[in-house]
Amino acid sequence: MRVIADLCVVPLGIGVSVSKEVAACERVLSEAGLKTRLHAYGTNIEGEWDDVFAAIKRCHEVVHAMGAPRISSTLRFGTRTDRGQTMDEKVRSVEEKLAR
Amino acid sequence: MRVIADLCVVPLGIGVSVSKEVAACERVLSEAGLKTRLHAYGTNIEGEWDDVFAAIKRCHEVVHAMGAPRISSTLRFGTRTDRGQTMDEKVRSVEEKLAR
Amino acid sequence: MRVIADLCVVPLGIGVSVSKEVAACERVLSEAGLKTRLHAYGTNIEGEWDDVFAAIKRCHEVVHAMGAPRISSTLRFGTRTDRGQTMDEKVRSVEEKLAR
Amino acid sequence: MRVIADLCVVPLGIGVSVSKEVAACERVLSEAGLKTRLHAYGTNIEGEWDDVFAAIKRCHEVVHAMGAPRISSTLRFGTRTDRGQTMDEKVRSVEEKLAR
Repeated sequence: MRVIADLCVVPLGIGVSVSKEVAACERVLSEAGLKTRLHAYGTNIEGEWDDVFAAIKRCHEVVHAMGAPRISSTLRFGTRTDRGQTMDEKVRSVEEKLAR
Repeated sequence: MRVIADLCVVPLGIGVSVSKEVAACERVLSEAGLKTRLHAYGTNIEGEWDDVFAAIKRCHEVVHAMGAPRISSTLRFGTRTDRGQTMDEKVRSVEEKLAR
Repeated sequence: MRVIADLCVVPLGIGVSVSKEVAACERVLSEAGLKTRLHAYGTNIEGEWDDVFAAIKRCHEVVHAMGAPRISSTLRFGTRTDRGQTMDEKVRSVEEKLAR
Repeated sequence: MRVIADLCVVPLGIGVSVSKEVAACERVLSEAGLKTRLHAYGTNIEGEWDDVFAAIKRCHEVVHAMGAPRISSTLRFGTRTDRGQTMDEKVRSVEEKLAR
C-alpha cells in the first residue's frame, strides 16, 4: 500500500529553535530512500506504508537521542485504491485547474 | 516506546456519512488491545508504538475493503522519554489546573 | 456557519509541561460561551465560525502573555450544509454502529 | 499578530477528486493578498492573523458553494513573539543545517 504523508515533528523542552531536529528528520527520511519535499510547516513523504512509518518512528528515536524529552508530531496521510498517485501528480493536478 | 496518539480517518468517495467506517476503525483499535477513547473529531489511542501503528494501518486496510477508494487521515502523536504518561493523566493534569 | 473543531495548542520554549497553558485555553473557550470537551490530545469545540475562531485567536494571545515565546497549534475543523450536526450527535452516530 | 499556517481542505460528498476545490481555495488565498505555497498535502500561508483566518473562512464558503455538502479541514498554525520569521526563513533554517 502506497502512502503520501505530510509530517511535522515538534520537539518540546529544548527551547524555541527546532530546525536542527527537523534537519535530522530530513536526513532520516532521505536515508530511508523515501521521496520527500520540505516545506515551511512540514515535509511531504511518498513511499510504501511500512517504509514511511518505519522512518517516522526513526525520526522520533533520533530526536529523543538528540536530547528532546518530549515530541508532539502531526501527520496527514492518504491512501487510495482507485489508482496510483504521486506527490508531483497531486500538485500538478491543482496547478492545471489554476491555469485554466 | 509508548505513544499517545489521536487519529481521525476521513474516507472519500462514499458520500457524506462516514460513521460506519469510523466505527469499523474503533473495532480494529480495540481488537488490537489498545486503550482508546472516542471523541467528536477523532479517537485517542494509547499503547506501544508498533502496536498503535500496526492498528492504524489495519484501519486503512479495513476502510478500503469496505469500499472507500480514498482515505485522508490525520494523526497527532506524542512520545516522551522524561517520564511515562497516560491519556488519563494528561486530562487530569489539565483538569487540576482548571480546578484551582 | 456552524463549525465543529478540534484544537491542540502546543507552546514551545517553556519546557515539557504545558498543562497550565492548556487549562488557560480551556478557560478562554468556555468564557467565550462555546461548547467544549477536553480529551487527551486536544479539545472539541462547537459553535458559530466567528465565535470559535475569535476564541482560538484569544488562546494564542493568552498563552503568549503567559510567557510562551512560540506556539504551534493544530486544528481540525468541519462544516456542513446538508444538515446541522452537534459534537454529541457525531459521537452517538459512531456508537450506534458499534452497538450493532 | 503574524501567523504561518498550513491548510488542507478536504471536501466530502463529491467523489474522490478534489483538485478543482483545492484550486479554488488557492485562488481565494492569493486574492486575499496572502503569501502562499502549494505542496502535495496542503498549502503554506503567511500573513496577519485576521487576514489568514478570514481567507480560510472564505475557502469553506466557496467550496460549499461549489457543491460540497461537507468539508473536513486541517490546519497547523504557528505564532511567535520572540522574533519575526517568514516561511522562506523557516525552510532556509532547516536547509542550512542539512548543508553542514
